[in-house]
Parts: sequence; structure tokens; C-alpha cells
Amino acid sequence: MRVIEVRNPRNGKLDYALRPLEGYDLKEEVARLRKGQLRWQSSPLEHRIEVMQRWAESFSNHKEAVLESLILDTGRKSESILEVNLMSQTILRWCQLVKSIFKNQDDKTSNIPSIYIKQQVQPYPLVGVISPWNFPLLLACIDTIPAILAGCSVLVKPSEITPRFLEPLMASIREIPELADVLSFVPGDGITGSEMIPMVDLLCFTGSVSTGKSIYMACARNFIPCFLELGGKDPALVFEGANLEHAASSILWGSIVNNGQSCLSIERVYVQKNIETAFLDILKRKMEKVKIAYPNMEDGQIGPIIAEKQVSIIQEQLDDALAKGAKIISGWSACEHLGGGWFIKPTLLTGVNHQMKIMQEESFGPLIPVMSFDSEEGAISLANETQFGLSAAIFHQNWEKAYRIGMQIEAGAISINECALTALVHEGEKQAFKMSGIGGTRMGPAAIRRFLRQKAFLINKSENPSPWWFP
Amino acid sequence: MRVIEVRNPRNGKLDYALRPLEGYDLKEEVARLRKGQLRWQSSPLEHRIEVMQRWAESFSNHKEAVLESLILDTGRKSESILEVNLMSQTILRWCQLVKSIFKNQDDKTSNIPSIYIKQQVQPYPLVGVISPWNFPLLLACIDTIPAILAGCSVLVKPSEITPRFLEPLMASIREIPELADVLSFVPGDGITGSEMIPMVDLLCFTGSVSTGKSIYMACARNFIPCFLELGGKDPALVFEGANLEHAASSILWGSIVNNGQSCLSIERVYVQKNIETAFLDILKRKMEKVKIAYPNMEDGQIGPIIAEKQVSIIQEQLDDALAKGAKIISGWSACEHLGGGWFIKPTLLTGVNHQMKIMQEESFGPLIPVMSFDSEEGAISLANETQFGLSAAIFHQNWEKAYRIGMQIEAGAISINECALTALVHEGEKQAFKMSGIGGTRMGPAAIRRFLRQKAFLINKSENPSPWWFP
Repeated sequence: MRVIEVRNPRNGKLDYALRPLEGYDLKEEVARLRKGQLRWQSSPLEHRIEVMQRWAESFSNHKEAVLESLILDTGRKSESILEVNLMSQTILRWCQLVKSIFKNQDDKTSNIPSIYIKQQVQPYPLVGVISPWNFPLLLACIDTIPAILAGCSVLVKPSEITPRFLEPLMASIREIPELADVLSFVPGDGITGSEMIPMVDLLCFTGSVSTGKSIYMACARNFIPCFLELGGKDPALVFEGANLEHAASSILWGSIVNNGQSCLSIERVYVQKNIETAFLDILKRKMEKVKIAYPNMEDGQIGPIIAEKQVSIIQEQLDDALAKGAKIISGWSACEHLGGGWFIKPTLLTGVNHQMKIMQEESFGPLIPVMSFDSEEGAISLANETQFGLSAAIFHQNWEKAYRIGMQIEAGAISINECALTALVHEGEKQAFKMSGIGGTRMGPAAIRRFLRQKAFLINKSENPSPWWFP
Repeated sequence: MRVIEVRNPRNGKLDYALRPLEGYDLKEEVARLRKGQLRWQSSPLEHRIEVMQRWAESFSNHKEAVLESLILDTGRKSESILEVNLMSQTILRWCQLVKSIFKNQDDKTSNIPSIYIKQQVQPYPLVGVISPWNFPLLLACIDTIPAILAGCSVLVKPSEITPRFLEPLMASIREIPELADVLSFVPGDGITGSEMIPMVDLLCFTGSVSTGKSIYMACARNFIPCFLELGGKDPALVFEGANLEHAASSILWGSIVNNGQSCLSIERVYVQKNIETAFLDILKRKMEKVKIAYPNMEDGQIGPIIAEKQVSIIQEQLDDALAKGAKIISGWSACEHLGGGWFIKPTLLTGVNHQMKIMQEESFGPLIPVMSFDSEEGAISLANETQFGLSAAIFHQNWEKAYRIGMQIEAGAISINECALTALVHEGEKQAFKMSGIGGTRMGPAAIRRFLRQKAFLINKSENPSPWWFP
């Protein structure tokens, strides 16, 4: 049996071992979930909601254990607290949203008067979820909870980089036998992921563009639908007249929350030329209050880089930018190895341009490169000069003008006079543009519809002969 | 320049030549459509509707020319008349449906009281459509019309087997310059199709499972969304107590309309054992009134097999069934070559089983294999024993019981006491199950949403500092 050793991001030690579920064992688990789904999909929605409400309760009882594991997995504390605190309310929120999807639909009248139409929905039996390491709990559940409520079984394979939370999470599920029949978080790496795809009926993936592309290919090969939410290179645009104190605070938060290890973090800042110096001064002042959370995890906002492979990506972007003429206004020019973990201070750069990797490739770190623009058109064109299209932020004294600017930005979510609001506001339905993803929104009630197939019953109640027959 | 010679299905002559649009010319056409789309998407919906209404009118003026070409393309007359007659009303129907999609959405309130949510939709700029030869006009337009109304440009490549209708159809479009800027039907074969995929932002394909699988792979490689509507092997279930005269007429229509060259045609019939003989007698009697439309196209219901490659598929299924013990009750044991075209009479078979190709593979011809069943469970299990899941029909004296049976059939549309109703009823929202397709419904208003991306604006109108910021 394979064993994967797992690194602790704070001290670099391989202090955890993961035994991936694969081969025969994975097949058995899939068979078990498929069997459970038959009863689950035909149970009334009220029952499914009630089971999920019990899970929200049971999770609360296991919250401390999940939190401890998440902290070991990620090396950071406040975001781990956020993740476990959001969990129960997220479950309960979906329990509310799902009602609007399953409310009884009236018969439709059709273009042929004698034919009645009844609409039904039928869940995909088994949904696969492959989730990333940056918000291990939150992103393992973002597609899972609506899929379960839709009536699917769900097989979730979280990242092998942050697997410690699985055991305490599964303990909270095992306490609810009806849920344990249809929901399983299994340990594994890319091999488990590849084995899963031919076994499921629909796949959701959150992660990098390169893995996302391979997963889309694998789903096509296996002829199943595929929902991808991938990387971003989200821009923030700051226009003359915006409240610069406010903009700088918000952009700083959007750039460095979870140490920039977030698909929707701000990774490029464009400031109108005549306010650039003022903005940089304010941002620099604010940045200097930010601390690395080392050696004490609770003293500071910036945790370690969770996945070691990211260190060379961040370093390469910094080296490339500096070699091409960028300047560091605040922060570090290199990642530092402290007590076995990798750290970097939030780093503000100017003198950057779109020939640099730092302006084109996802950093997934607390880098804040700032460029200036002359005109509205120039700002829009800079914002759109990217392969990504996840989200964007606009700071403008007139929110309606900002809205019209946002209409021209190729991204699924536009925060106005705030940053990265999709992390906090759950109701906005949005899709990823360009390489940032494929498939329907995963926010709002429409997110649940992804897991349901429309089924139409076209009924002749009368048995009168229909006019189009021959002979 | 490549020239593809096109066969006339009635006389086998290569009497038409097609010059596929490819290479530089295709790129130019794509650039032209992308340019046109910029203005189109920002024009008011009322304008787009008004342009489409003018197309419905202009089409009426070119109806005769399109009809003549369609008859040459397909060798059959009544279905060609149906196609051109439906065209204008289909355009006008979508003009109505689209209004419900673009109606103004209210601002949503969010979980953060200071944040307002505005929802918008943004069309995919360029949609590609690859369409088949069995209903050349109807299926070239089924995804095209809603996509155009959504604000996309559309590049359509109909089948190289039936390309004659393109020229008169394009003549109707050229009369509406605003439409000609965003809609183009181009001649081409699979090579043109392969060239198209990397140039468009979303692809719709209607056709065979094998081509559909390759197209899904190509879309994944090019990272664009893909909507597929593929083959079917639709079952009809006839239960004791059903009106057998009615069932036999309806099943006959569902099996042989357009000579069975329809994805949603009935290709398998299951009859409750104690009524099998009675049902077969009635069906045989009705079948014997059906005539091959040869030599006179207008005298008879059964036209030629349109695509010559289908002849060997039908023949292989018949040979395989007969070799394994099936018996022909009515019809022919072989396709016949009459005046250069290929014909086969509607053919009723018994003694068939699921080991035969005729019960497993799509026939796309007027074959009617009949098996019996003992119980409701048996009937459901036979209906589901297939790789396909397009639609199904149930005949039962109690439509509510039929509805409950239909709930257990893995298919997106269930006709009750009728057959193949999705050909006639447009409002039922349905998705293809199993290998019959991928992606959302192409009927009802939701069909339009496939061409729109949800975009959320999350707006802080107040500029009050938000509580989650640090420092």
C-alpha cells in the first residue's frame, strides 16, 4: 500500500502520513455511495435538509478537532478559525437555498393544447469533488453541500498537501448514518483523482489552471460533465477621486488575506497616474503594520507558504520582475526559510509591466505589483490583458460609473469600492471567464441546478387521437 | 481549394459541389463575426428581437428556394415542408422566450448589509454550431436562434451531406445587414469543424455519439464549454390496458417519421406479454398502409436513406438480428437500391433480444423490433439497459402510473400515451442522460442561459470602512 508523507508547512517536517484510497478499496467506496444514493434521491427534501441540519450540529461538536488539524495542515490560525466557524452556517444556508429549487412546479401548457407538461429534476447519482489546499475545508465543501442536498452522493478527494482535517471531519459525518451512506471524504493524491474520474457521473474541481485543463480532458474522455473553478490574476483599479485610505486598506486585505493563497486575491493594482504617489504612500504605510506570524503563530497576519512548490513560483516572479527593472517599495526580495517553514512579507512593487511574469502568471502569494494608467480605456484594457477572468475590483467616487467600467471587464465578479467580495458575499451568481473556469455558477440557487438534470414529462391525458399521425 | 462532391440521395448522382470554408478564409469570417458581436451584444434586446423578426419575414420570402434545396438535400418532401414552415414561427417563439431572460433583475440584498448585489449576464462572444443532415435546417437553427438572441455571434457549419440549403438560407440573412454581421452558415466538412473549435468560445453539436465524443475532447483541449445532443435508442413501453390502436399508430409515427432518421425516434418497443399478439396484429395492419415514396416522391411516406453510410449500419443490424433468430413480421430484410437511391420499408421484427445490435445500437432507420415483458420492473429494466438516455414513451391506461414508471427511466423526456413528443412540444425543459448528450436543456428559456455568463457586481455604495479589514 502506498504511503504519502505530508509536510508540515510551519516546520518542514514530514510529520503525517496519508494512505491514499485507490484500486479495489476506491471501487468499494464508490459502490457503497451509489447504493446509498438510491434511497437518498427518493427521500423527501425535508428529510435531506433535516439530515444536513444534524450534520451542522454534529460538526459543531467536532469543531475543535477539525480546527487543530486545519492549523497543522496550513500553518495559519485566523483563517482556520474562519473556515470552521463558517461551516455550520454554510450548511444551514444551503438548506434554505435548496427549497427554492425543489418547490413544486406547475404543469406547463404546451403549444399542443391536448399535451400537458410536467417538469421534474433528477440528480446525477455520484458527484466527484477534487479540492485544493489553500482553504482545505471550505473548498472541499463548496460544491459538496449543494450536491448532497440536490440528492447526489458525493465522493470528495481533498488535496494531499493538507489532509489532516479529513479524519475529524469524517468523524462528524459518521455520527449521522444517513449522511455517511452518501458522503465520503477520502485521502489521496493525483492518482486517486485520476482513478475517480471514470467512476463518477459529474466532476467538480477547484485548483490550478494546468491541473484543471487535464481534468477537463479526462472528463471529456469519460464523457461526464465538468465544473472547474481555477486560478485568477484579479486586478484592482483605483480611479482619481476614490477614497484612497479605504482603497489601500481594502486592496491590502484582498492581496494578503490567507497570505495571497486564494484564487480571488488581488494580484495586480492599476492606479490613475496623478494619484499613484499618494496611493503608494498610504499603502506602504499600511503594509508596514503587517507582520509575519513567526515564530508565534498568533502574533502576525502572514502565515507560511503552505505548499512548498509555490516558493519557487513566487521567487521566479520576483527575480524576473527585478531583473526587468521593477523596484520593491516595501517587503522582501526573496522567500525566507524560517524554522523549516517558508515565509515572505507582503511585497509592494512598482516599475512593473505586462512583459513580466508577475503581471501575467498567478502568484498565489502576497505580492502587490502596482502600475499606473492614464485613461479609463487604458485601465480597462490593462485589466483585460490576461488569460484569467475570475474577478476584479474597482475603486471610484461614483459607483454607477464604476459599474459601467465593470461591464467592460472580462470577469465573473466585480467588487466596487471593496476587494475580493466573493469571499464574503454568497448570493452573487457568477461564472468564471476565460481560463479561470468552465461551467455554471457555484453561488446562489443556480449552483444546485448544476447537479440536477431537467426531465420533461409530456402527457396526453385524453387519449384522443393526435392529428399528426399517419396512416 | 478543396471541392467536396455531394451525393443526391434519390438518384445517387454527385450533382452538387461544396467548397469548404477553411484556413485564412475561415479566420477572416471569424474576425468579421467577432467584430459584429461587439455592437450586437451592447444593442438593446428590443433591437435584437426586431432584427430577428425581420429575418422571420425575409425567410418567408426565400422559403420556396430553401424548400427546393432541402428536398434535393434529403430526397423527402413532407418533412422538408415541415422544416421550412416551422422556421419563421420558431424565430418568433424565441423572440418571446428571450424576454423572460433579460427582464430587469432587482438588486439582491446580501449577507453583508452594506453590500448591494447587481446581477448581469454577458454573452459568450462567438458560438460555434456543428449540425447534422437529418433535419438540416431545423437542427442548424435549434441552438443558433437562441444564441443570436442572447447577444452572441454564431458560426454554423451544417453537414457536408446536405449543404444545398445554405445558399438560399444565407440569401435571407444577407437582406438583414445587422444580422449578417453576426450570423453565418458556412460550408464545410469535418476538417472545417476541427478548424472552427479553437476559434470559438462555446460549441454546440448535434450528431452521432462517436463524433460527439471527439468534439467534447476537442473542446476540452481548447478549454471551451461544449453542449452535445447525440444519439438515442428510445424505447416505447406498452402496458396492458392501454389503447392499442392509439399506441400502434403513435409508435408507428414515432418510428418512421423522417424514415427513422431522427435522434428521438422510437427504436425499441416493449409490450406486456399478454397483449403482444394483439398489438403486433394492429401494428402490422397499420404498417402495411405505409408506402415507399418511390418513384414518385409525393406518393408515399418513406423517403430514401439520406446518408449512404447508414445503409450498411441498417443492413448490419438486420443481418445480425436475423442470424440470431429474429423474424420479420412486416417489411424488408435488406435495403434496396432503387433508381440510384437507397430505400427500406418500415420493418417489424420479433424474436429479438438485447444481445442483438438492433436492440443496442442506434439504427437511424425505420426498424421496429418488438420484445415482450412480464412485469413493470422488467419493463423498466429493459428500457434502462442501454448506453443512451435521450427520451422514451409509455402507453398505459393510467397516466399517473405511467408518470411514476417514467420517473424510473433514465432519459430526459418521457412521452406518455404519445411518442417522440419532444419533436412537437417545445416548452419541456429536458437534458440528455448517459451517452445521449452533455449540458443544459436546449428547450425552454433555460436554453438561452447556456449562451450567457452570470456576472455579479458586489457594490459598497457607502464607502464606510468594512469591519473585516486589517490593519
